[in-house]
Amino acid sequence: MSDYFSDIAPIQYEGAQSTNPLAFKHYNPDEVILGKTMREHLRFGACYWHNFCWDGADVFGGATFNRPWLKAGDPMERAKQKADVAFDFFSKLNIPFYCFHDIDVAPEGDTVSDYIDNLSRMTDVLAQKQEDTGLQLLWGTANVFSNPRYMSGAATNPDPALFARAATQVYHAMNATKTLGGANYVLWGGREGYETLLNTDLKREREQLGRFMNMVVEHKHKIGFDGLLLIEPKPQEPTKHQYDYDTATVYGFLKEYGLEKEFAVNIEANHATLSGHSFHHEIATAFALGIFGSIDANRGDAQLGWDTDQFPNSVEEMTLICYEILKNGGYTSGGFNFDTKLRRQSMDPADLFHGHIGGMDTCALGLKKAAQMLENDFIAQTREQRYAGWNQDLGKQILEGKFDLASLAKYTADKQLDPKPVSGQQELLENQVNQAIFR
Amino acid sequence: MSDYFSDIAPIQYEGAQSTNPLAFKHYNPDEVILGKTMREHLRFGACYWHNFCWDGADVFGGATFNRPWLKAGDPMERAKQKADVAFDFFSKLNIPFYCFHDIDVAPEGDTVSDYIDNLSRMTDVLAQKQEDTGLQLLWGTANVFSNPRYMSGAATNPDPALFARAATQVYHAMNATKTLGGANYVLWGGREGYETLLNTDLKREREQLGRFMNMVVEHKHKIGFDGLLLIEPKPQEPTKHQYDYDTATVYGFLKEYGLEKEFAVNIEANHATLSGHSFHHEIATAFALGIFGSIDANRGDAQLGWDTDQFPNSVEEMTLICYEILKNGGYTSGGFNFDTKLRRQSMDPADLFHGHIGGMDTCALGLKKAAQMLENDFIAQTREQRYAGWNQDLGKQILEGKFDLASLAKYTADKQLDPKPVSGQQELLENQVNQAIFR
Amino acid sequence: MSDYFSDIAPIQYEGAQSTNPLAFKHYNPDEVILGKTMREHLRFGACYWHNFCWDGADVFGGATFNRPWLKAGDPMERAKQKADVAFDFFSKLNIPFYCFHDIDVAPEGDTVSDYIDNLSRMTDVLAQKQEDTGLQLLWGTANVFSNPRYMSGAATNPDPALFARAATQVYHAMNATKTLGGANYVLWGGREGYETLLNTDLKREREQLGRFMNMVVEHKHKIGFDGLLLIEPKPQEPTKHQYDYDTATVYGFLKEYGLEKEFAVNIEANHATLSGHSFHHEIATAFALGIFGSIDANRGDAQLGWDTDQFPNSVEEMTLICYEILKNGGYTSGGFNFDTKLRRQSMDPADLFHGHIGGMDTCALGLKKAAQMLENDFIAQTREQRYAGWNQDLGKQILEGKFDLASLAKYTADKQLDPKPVSGQQELLENQVNQAIFR
Amino acid sequence: MSDYFSDIAPIQYEGAQSTNPLAFKHYNPDEVILGKTMREHLRFGACYWHNFCWDGADVFGGATFNRPWLKAGDPMERAKQKADVAFDFFSKLNIPFYCFHDIDVAPEGDTVSDYIDNLSRMTDVLAQKQEDTGLQLLWGTANVFSNPRYMSGAATNPDPALFARAATQVYHAMNATKTLGGANYVLWGGREGYETLLNTDLKREREQLGRFMNMVVEHKHKIGFDGLLLIEPKPQEPTKHQYDYDTATVYGFLKEYGLEKEFAVNIEANHATLSGHSFHHEIATAFALGIFGSIDANRGDAQLGWDTDQFPNSVEEMTLICYEILKNGGYTSGGFNFDTKLRRQSMDPADLFHGHIGGMDTCALGLKKAAQMLENDFIAQTREQRYAGWNQDLGKQILEGKFDLASLAKYTADKQLDPKPVSGQQELLENQVNQAIFR
Repeated sequence: MSDYFSDIAPIQYEGAQSTNPLAFKHYNPDEVILGKTMREHLRFGACYWHNFCWDGADVFGGATFNRPWLKAGDPMERAKQKADVAFDFFSKLNIPFYCFHDIDVAPEGDTVSDYIDNLSRMTDVLAQKQEDTGLQLLWGTANVFSNPRYMSGAATNPDPALFARAATQVYHAMNATKTLGGANYVLWGGREGYETLLNTDLKREREQLGRFMNMVVEHKHKIGFDGLLLIEPKPQEPTKHQYDYDTATVYGFLKEYGLEKEFAVNIEANHATLSGHSFHHEIATAFALGIFGSIDANRGDAQLGWDTDQFPNSVEEMTLICYEILKNGGYTSGGFNFDTKLRRQSMDPADLFHGHIGGMDTCALGLKKAAQMLENDFIAQTREQRYAGWNQDLGKQILEGKFDLASLAKYTADKQLDPKPVSGQQELLENQVNQAIFR
Repeated sequence: MSDYFSDIAPIQYEGAQSTNPLAFKHYNPDEVILGKTMREHLRFGACYWHNFCWDGADVFGGATFNRPWLKAGDPMERAKQKADVAFDFFSKLNIPFYCFHDIDVAPEGDTVSDYIDNLSRMTDVLAQKQEDTGLQLLWGTANVFSNPRYMSGAATNPDPALFARAATQVYHAMNATKTLGGANYVLWGGREGYETLLNTDLKREREQLGRFMNMVVEHKHKIGFDGLLLIEPKPQEPTKHQYDYDTATVYGFLKEYGLEKEFAVNIEANHATLSGHSFHHEIATAFALGIFGSIDANRGDAQLGWDTDQFPNSVEEMTLICYEILKNGGYTSGGFNFDTKLRRQSMDPADLFHGHIGGMDTCALGLKKAAQMLENDFIAQTREQRYAGWNQDLGKQILEGKFDLASLAKYTADKQLDPKPVSGQQELLENQVNQAIFR
Repeated sequence: MSDYFSDIAPIQYEGAQSTNPLAFKHYNPDEVILGKTMREHLRFGACYWHNFCWDGADVFGGATFNRPWLKAGDPMERAKQKADVAFDFFSKLNIPFYCFHDIDVAPEGDTVSDYIDNLSRMTDVLAQKQEDTGLQLLWGTANVFSNPRYMSGAATNPDPALFARAATQVYHAMNATKTLGGANYVLWGGREGYETLLNTDLKREREQLGRFMNMVVEHKHKIGFDGLLLIEPKPQEPTKHQYDYDTATVYGFLKEYGLEKEFAVNIEANHATLSGHSFHHEIATAFALGIFGSIDANRGDAQLGWDTDQFPNSVEEMTLICYEILKNGGYTSGGFNFDTKLRRQSMDPADLFHGHIGGMDTCALGLKKAAQMLENDFIAQTREQRYAGWNQDLGKQILEGKFDLASLAKYTADKQLDPKPVSGQQELLENQVNQAIFR
Repeated sequence: MSDYFSDIAPIQYEGAQSTNPLAFKHYNPDEVILGKTMREHLRFGACYWHNFCWDGADVFGGATFNRPWLKAGDPMERAKQKADVAFDFFSKLNIPFYCFHDIDVAPEGDTVSDYIDNLSRMTDVLAQKQEDTGLQLLWGTANVFSNPRYMSGAATNPDPALFARAATQVYHAMNATKTLGGANYVLWGGREGYETLLNTDLKREREQLGRFMNMVVEHKHKIGFDGLLLIEPKPQEPTKHQYDYDTATVYGFLKEYGLEKEFAVNIEANHATLSGHSFHHEIATAFALGIFGSIDANRGDAQLGWDTDQFPNSVEEMTLICYEILKNGGYTSGGFNFDTKLRRQSMDPADLFHGHIGGMDTCALGLKKAAQMLENDFIAQTREQRYAGWNQDLGKQILEGKFDLASLAKYTADKQLDPKPVSGQQELLENQVNQAIFR
């Protein structure tokens, strides 16, 4: 089974001129950029689910990938074979982190007890794999959306017994994440939303979800898990509407339940664009709200209205993302996780490598270009100057509450204020970005 | 000037069988539905801006409407002529409320002093008009987005002098609204957003906006204005991104600045759909968050990505809106305001009446159909039953915090909980809605 | 197996006041509207695939429906059980037509021979079922998109052997359709498109598809099939771009290959909206181009970017569709086929009936309301008057080619033509439609 | 007046390391790439309308640019001043081509005679300017959409007198284009579409438009104009639906009226994306259909549903465009025209230069990167190999019509064909593109 990638040698950095498709052109893990290695800056992770749990089926057609470890067989044996293949892949890719859902790595089983037992045994397997390979866990999570029992939600299910069932998975998945030294724990509310308002009590479901998240926070502190708790926003799909619609919506929810210091967001590029925002917007908003955590690095298709989870390949976009991250001090426990799917026609074992190599080189280039933007940071300087008035008297007094509407209106009338607008310089700023990228 | 509508007689209710296009078929103001007249339920308002300040120009072409009062001339004389025509229209339409921006009704003038003076004089004119006609003011607002000075925002402008200039308008517009007995005061942040993140400091702009809104609240209490303060969400247009993106985003902002008890939302149908939500979603969300205020009743075009502000004409959609409102106790100070534009080709004076008659009949039908839904309310009963488990032991204990993750996981494992999903019955519920509408 | 719907009695028309959810409120098959029965006007069909071949799985979760006939077992036995259940459903629903893909009704088997043999045997089964129940076949089609072999297309596959494989299915599916007295034959090019332009030769693939369609036409005539050949446009999904994007695109393709007299379109509501058009637009365009054929009646979700295939429930929309069809003389061999999926949570046997009853009542209401529009057809009269000038001298001479640019420019200058625009009356016309629906 | 740009020196190529924002970093007009200079490859044009006829107003706000030549004054004097400024700009930008609408350059006047006279006089002015500066005309066109008389269309207007009025403009604009040595003539049917199907006769309007286009073709041949006639597709805006929706739709229309050899398309990037396609798709489709003509180089905003006409700044996208063009032999008479608007806040004279410099450098980089892709063209080689089977026996025989469905089905069954799918290699191909761009 671990022969699956036997034709592929470990991926090495060979530089931009290399014609070897199975080599990094730009990701050089030990290269130092602004005082840290690329490995430390980028904190790349690969995912278990798309890579090893999906066989190429889509809504209109069957499996194309023919993955041996997904064929019928003893579930625990298959789970171990899957782990063998997965860690062989992670190692050959030279990626430092991986991520999983509980049922990616362990069979669900027929009963709660089976589930608990299987996850426990597979946690041991993964611990050994981590030790053998040096891989680390970027985050763990519980899949409480795929099993048909969760068709109407997990925490927001109309049936409290399903809340309990989901809580059980999250409890064990958090514990496994702690055991495996995971850097973060993620919640993605895939079915925490609605299909139709006609059968949905929005207020009630919010309260259920608020209680659920508070239980997660309490448990984190109880077990001394010191990573971030992350919520991954998505507007819809599979549901018609998901409560964690986007970063600003998540922030409102956190504030409602007093959780804004306890959770950060795990922003996925394709979720951002599906929610009507740019990827850059979601990152910048998360920093502005103080809840930036981690990134699911992928891309959508601008013409398609569903989550395509393609590998990121726009250096132009990624440069702006890296610029935001660098300016704000870099990742703490988060990282760039490739929540990415091969195209359904990419059925060769090597295709998994091509996808990740392209994604990693894209992020590496983005990092380098962002570092170039930060030298003589024209963007930041222009912006600082644009708001300069707010550091002067009138601006400061306004923000400090020295004026009410009446006194400010009087001030304006007394001075007959007639402020003139000045150019926003958007084209100039865009040119500056391109100059950093293509100089 | 007030001859403009001289060919149009006052609009009367003539019933569904009438073939007179200039009559109400369904809006019968004095008809009692569920204990209140339709006039009281619906609280219709017409707007000053689209109806009387726009001449039919669009981005690709010039004015088609040829409104006499928009021709060159002495600004104050033109403003009075406009008021004559507007109140003639409102009266003939038999609509109880109207709304305005400050500069819809009064010339901006060349200086701050001009502005203040003009608005003061036109407030007197409007007060007299209200007395003469019985019209009431649903809400007033300040236009701090059209003048080129606000091209980079008002409260969120990089220049504090422009914040001050905007505050001046809001101060006088609030005072005018109070003077005229306005039921509410609205803020629409048309340029409170960004064109490019490259020149924008999101955090700083949020703080400016937070301070601005607090000043509005303080002034409201100071002058004893007892209507609602309303924020009107919109995702974009004219800006690339507007901070008041949708109801959930506004809620998060209000929570951040401690304003969630002080503001409600004025939801516009077309803004809802531009933000990726259904109109129904935005209304239901506002009620769930406790911030429902008022409605700008219009519709977008499902194929177009900009604000078309068409007259509402879907009884099917409006029935669900009215059902939500009725279930939640009806409007307090809000109402259905027609923030609606004629199509550019609808250049006849009668077209203004056709648009509003159609919109008012649509809402009236929606109200009647919603009242039918509430008789033996199948939707509510099904929903109540769906969540029944949350009123029983396990559900209550979860919500009351009797469980933490560990104890709930133990409970689940001890009981080997294996809850079965049940049908969501979406098709049945949709059929029930149609049965109420088309019985 | 045919006990699956044993709790459901045959669906009857009980009228608008009935409170029985399992009855038609508006579809009264024998009621005569404008000289034909509703059954003859509407020509309803139900589909085999969504109803009987899908078990409730979506991209993010497993099967919820638990259909007994989809469990493991002898494929031909399961196919017969499926046919028993399907015809029991069709009969109880009192729907006159059904539709299928070849592999909906017969197992694909392991080899070409298996496929041919299975389809032949199941054709006999279906023929007997039709005789027993009186059901008729609205159309047949071949599924050349689900099997992984077709992942890169069927007719447009880079491998001609896959073109041949697909041709084999179409050959046998056409023959089966002819044998079963099918009224039409459909082609839906689910994978005839591309995932990336980087690996795609658009020109070559068009030529392949053109040849394929010509082979279909030749075969139709050879076997004396006298129904319509129908192409079903869709813009994307599963592919990034599908060649049969929309009706206008299909028309261009047909013209390129000389096929515009041989094919008509089968328009699906949800495909229309995914392509950026209204359902009404696609129907009106098909009539304007002379290629209207049949309808897949369903609806999408205005907020979702994928094919949701929900049951149609907007009488407002369906009235306009029926109006277009009636004005253009009604269906010839086409009909309203419900290409509709239950929501994944609708797992009860009765839900299949609720969905179809709602859809059929929606179309029936649309038909009745459209008939009301046609009495004193205000819309048509207004339109005729709007273009009246084209029936007079100048208009006729222009269309007859009496002018070239030079002479027409001279005519205009000589007469100093200064034509005045007139109102487009959109709001008035919309009100008239609502008046027909809600009088 | 021609002092407007007096602070700006002529723009020079200074190379990628230059820190002068008013210099080209990559566009070096005389640099030879694949045997032609960049000037010859790219054939850059700037437009008259956005640059010199627009003052920064949008739907929600007034003019921000304060252009002196747009102030009130004698129309012909203002037109000459505008021409002075425009040609000063074009010259300083060192751009070889420009484009205009008739009423961009000449006042419309009050009568047909005025229009003809003004255009004639301004044609002389422009001829002199061209001679003085060496500028050339990429294309001319007639604006038959802005004047309110065209609110219901030009060729498709319900009033034939408006068809005649539009024909007059097109006649004189074509003649002026010929006089000025224009390389092409463009038609953009901004109002050739509909606002509502309720008042629209699609079939009739198609016939009117078909006749109009044939008149244009006849006139072209009559006057011996030897440039291309170009149609510019756009899906909507200002109308709800425009007949020239996209390239495939235009092709169908051309085929219907026998015009496919007479017209090519002028593809605008932002129109492409508004129509649901990628820019690349529209270019590739135009080449596949044999109707590629020219490009309006701009970009939209992926989050906005209207035409933003921003300057192109994605080298990643432009590389693929240039690759398609180079592979297909380059432009004939077309070119890259910047149909681009400044952002409304970009009010400085220098901003016009920043926008165009950025756009020209983006295209220049795209050209260079595309040339790199063509060295050892991995994409083309992979594609050729992918379709290799179609150059062999089975493929050739199919395309040559040697098989009908029956014989091909028999062949497949006899051989028991079971073709295996092969990887589409999308990720590998995407990596190759990035490697050419970022090597």
